[in-house]
Amino acid sequence: MTAYDDLMAHARETEALAQVAGRLGWDQETMMPRGAAAQRGEESAAMEGVLHARRTDPRIGDWLERAEAPDDVAAANLREIRRAYARANKVPASLAAEIARVTSVAQGTWAQARADEDVAAFLPTLARVVALRQEEGQALAGGGDVYDALLDDYEPGAKAAELDAMFGALRPRLVSLREAIRERPQPEALSGKFDEAAQLALTRELAEIFGYDMARGRIDKAVHPFCSGSGNDVRVTTRTDPADPFNCLYSTIHEVGHASYEQNVDPDYLLTPIGRGVSMGVHESQSRIYENQLARSPAFAGWLLGRMRDAFGDIGITDPMEFARAVNRVSDGYIRTESDEVQYNLHVLMRFDLERALISGDLAVEDLEAAWNDRFAADFGFAVDRPSNGCLQDVHWSVGLMGYFPTYSLGNVYAGCLHEALRKARPGLDDELARGDLSGATGWLRENVQRHGALRGPRETVQAACGFAPSEAPLLDYLEAKFGTLYDL
Amino acid sequence: MTAYDDLMAHARETEALAQVAGRLGWDQETMMPRGAAAQRGEESAAMEGVLHARRTDPRIGDWLERAEAPDDVAAANLREIRRAYARANKVPASLAAEIARVTSVAQGTWAQARADEDVAAFLPTLARVVALRQEEGQALAGGGDVYDALLDDYEPGAKAAELDAMFGALRPRLVSLREAIRERPQPEALSGKFDEAAQLALTRELAEIFGYDMARGRIDKAVHPFCSGSGNDVRVTTRTDPADPFNCLYSTIHEVGHASYEQNVDPDYLLTPIGRGVSMGVHESQSRIYENQLARSPAFAGWLLGRMRDAFGDIGITDPMEFARAVNRVSDGYIRTESDEVQYNLHVLMRFDLERALISGDLAVEDLEAAWNDRFAADFGFAVDRPSNGCLQDVHWSVGLMGYFPTYSLGNVYAGCLHEALRKARPGLDDELARGDLSGATGWLRENVQRHGALRGPRETVQAACGFAPSEAPLLDYLEAKFGTLYDL
Repeated sequence: MTAYDDLMAHARETEALAQVAGRLGWDQETMMPRGAAAQRGEESAAMEGVLHARRTDPRIGDWLERAEAPDDVAAANLREIRRAYARANKVPASLAAEIARVTSVAQGTWAQARADEDVAAFLPTLARVVALRQEEGQALAGGGDVYDALLDDYEPGAKAAELDAMFGALRPRLVSLREAIRERPQPEALSGKFDEAAQLALTRELAEIFGYDMARGRIDKAVHPFCSGSGNDVRVTTRTDPADPFNCLYSTIHEVGHASYEQNVDPDYLLTPIGRGVSMGVHESQSRIYENQLARSPAFAGWLLGRMRDAFGDIGITDPMEFARAVNRVSDGYIRTESDEVQYNLHVLMRFDLERALISGDLAVEDLEAAWNDRFAADFGFAVDRPSNGCLQDVHWSVGLMGYFPTYSLGNVYAGCLHEALRKARPGLDDELARGDLSGATGWLRENVQRHGALRGPRETVQAACGFAPSEAPLLDYLEAKFGTLYDL
Repeated sequence: MTAYDDLMAHARETEALAQVAGRLGWDQETMMPRGAAAQRGEESAAMEGVLHARRTDPRIGDWLERAEAPDDVAAANLREIRRAYARANKVPASLAAEIARVTSVAQGTWAQARADEDVAAFLPTLARVVALRQEEGQALAGGGDVYDALLDDYEPGAKAAELDAMFGALRPRLVSLREAIRERPQPEALSGKFDEAAQLALTRELAEIFGYDMARGRIDKAVHPFCSGSGNDVRVTTRTDPADPFNCLYSTIHEVGHASYEQNVDPDYLLTPIGRGVSMGVHESQSRIYENQLARSPAFAGWLLGRMRDAFGDIGITDPMEFARAVNRVSDGYIRTESDEVQYNLHVLMRFDLERALISGDLAVEDLEAAWNDRFAADFGFAVDRPSNGCLQDVHWSVGLMGYFPTYSLGNVYAGCLHEALRKARPGLDDELARGDLSGATGWLRENVQRHGALRGPRETVQAACGFAPSEAPLLDYLEAKFGTLYDL
């Protein structure tokens, strides 16, 4: 056994245990009896203890000193192991435990404050979470930028300054696009009741059309749609709303984008450090291109209209372009997760700016609500009416996920780049989409992005697939063209 | 922290991890996508590795040397920890790994041999499993009885010689009872098709009537009925057969007996070494008394008949006594798991004798089929027709569970004792059962058996509940009385 072999054997077992912990999380959201919550807390904490001990095992340091990489795959595995080991060891165990303890309670405090529309009730908790994450960021940054150190957990190698430049170019054109659309008449929304069993049946059909391998996955109902697991056991969840079938259908296609990335990684990489999606941003690029550039394209919408009429009978819309407008409806709203392609990034950019200011200390926690409401009015053109529609809407900050939000917009930017490259590679894509044939598009993404897992860094993964350096330009061009047509701008 | 505190903190975390491993097993049988099997093998092996390392942690030995028990509960916890630690350390890691490796493949070999009716194809594998278990038994016995050492894993403190005496008294009276019944006319069986959704709805109703707390459990379909988990997350599975609703209903009541034992242990013992059923035999006493002495009593059967007619309409039987005969039908059959109360123990006793002979070396693996068939003809009065109805019918030996079978009959013996004590404590039990009211019976079992978990040893648990030393006599008296009435003997 070489040092590299030792490292990989250890990493493989750790990865297998991480899959077990992940499956426990899935169970908690889908299957767990409600009375089991407290016991499950102990079980999950015990698993986290096992994983933490493995990730900080000092033998990893010894092996890393002696390990050599005979090829690109080994080099990539060593890069991932080195990175994870360095991060795990930079954060003192007592700090990691305190963050786990505080954030596990904080989520409940946030949920209650949101229900009560009471920002003040959440602020002391948020202040504590911010302080702990500042401390963690300092430990990780070792003198460098604290926010970058947090961001690096979700998007290895990304820098806030670079994202800021990219997002700075995105924002004004999105705001103008949004303003232009607001002056146009609103498209029809769907009306009526949509049978939930029929929604689930159609959602399964769509999942398979988009390439989800049900022999290595499953779809269950849960409060929130999510994707969980790697390799040959990748599960997604969905939800149904009898008044809004798009909620179920499009959230499933989104999660199937995540799931396909995990299912389609080269089987040789199974349970190794590179055997999964390389970053949150690249993951989101897959979910968003499946959901938006593909499933919300006018060409595919035309096909979906037929399937929806088969499944639900009269849905109040018969014209394909009218249906394309319905699935791409841009309307005033407060909530990020319910937002359309045009406004979604405006939500994210605002959170990115606010959380950087919280972490740097430029924004005090008690000034968050005012800062949120000012920025919202500036970008969206109307005022926040209550905290649950404002700064209390997202769970992220309560559980300490500062540094996560920007990966949503980075994923959209990457999706824009990949979509441009895909269109060039498959000039007949719209004809395929109009037949409900996704195999060309998902096959291209599988070959060019998904199968590589974390072989390359996030940005390098997208660049290698596209053949050009990622930028915000393709996304903006795509949005302006698509919504220009849909809204007769 | 005292040494006892250290031990208990360590044990609690180990128990939490064991629950995670158990839930992974549940997932495998109920939810896992079929393509995930190989990956799951790695995940389960990694969990087993974690558990084995924890169970053999040398700190346990140090703590045990210094630990003192301030009370009965602590003494019982120390007893369980000492026992598990001694066993885990007696078996060399290489032997444990080899057993895990061989038995994981052996189950597939057995299933194929059974499908092919090919005993010879299974024998080399069985010989290897027997040899490995002999080696393990020798390591555990340290010069003592090898079979007893294996038995002790499932029934702490039990001795084969004592069971042999008990079973020796059981066998002749069961054979005579069986022979007497065979001369009587066969009762009617149910006829028709039974809607599977209605079976599942009724099975859920029965589970709750028998005290299963659905807020801390759930019922799913699986190939085999089983119960999994402890404390506040105890799940059961069931299956449906459209021609035979009793399969679903009675297997669920059986599993609910197991589940109730786990759910009803004193909450103070949660995730501690005594926080679960004390042995397989006592566990089986709960499942069997729920299934047989309670749910197959003529009094309860009369109530169930009404519920079945509500659920399924005409079921071909309207008379309560006729229905009681149908749920207690004794007919010729080869298969243990499909057997009735009279013949079930004859199946088990035969496996007990055969597996002791295999482990002692008195019976060579190649002579197993002949020995099985001879014994079957002697006890059941007709010949085995093919291996899948004979020595290939049960999975147990392929996975190395030698020492497990006798706990089934011991459980029945214990159920007989507990039933006698329960009848004395609740003279109006039949009136309660005739109203479908199980609360008195299950409440008595909860208070006298279940809530104590593993506070006392297995035999001591039953003796304390009954107020007399357990013997086979109550079971025999009960069976002869019940079947004497049902069959007009």
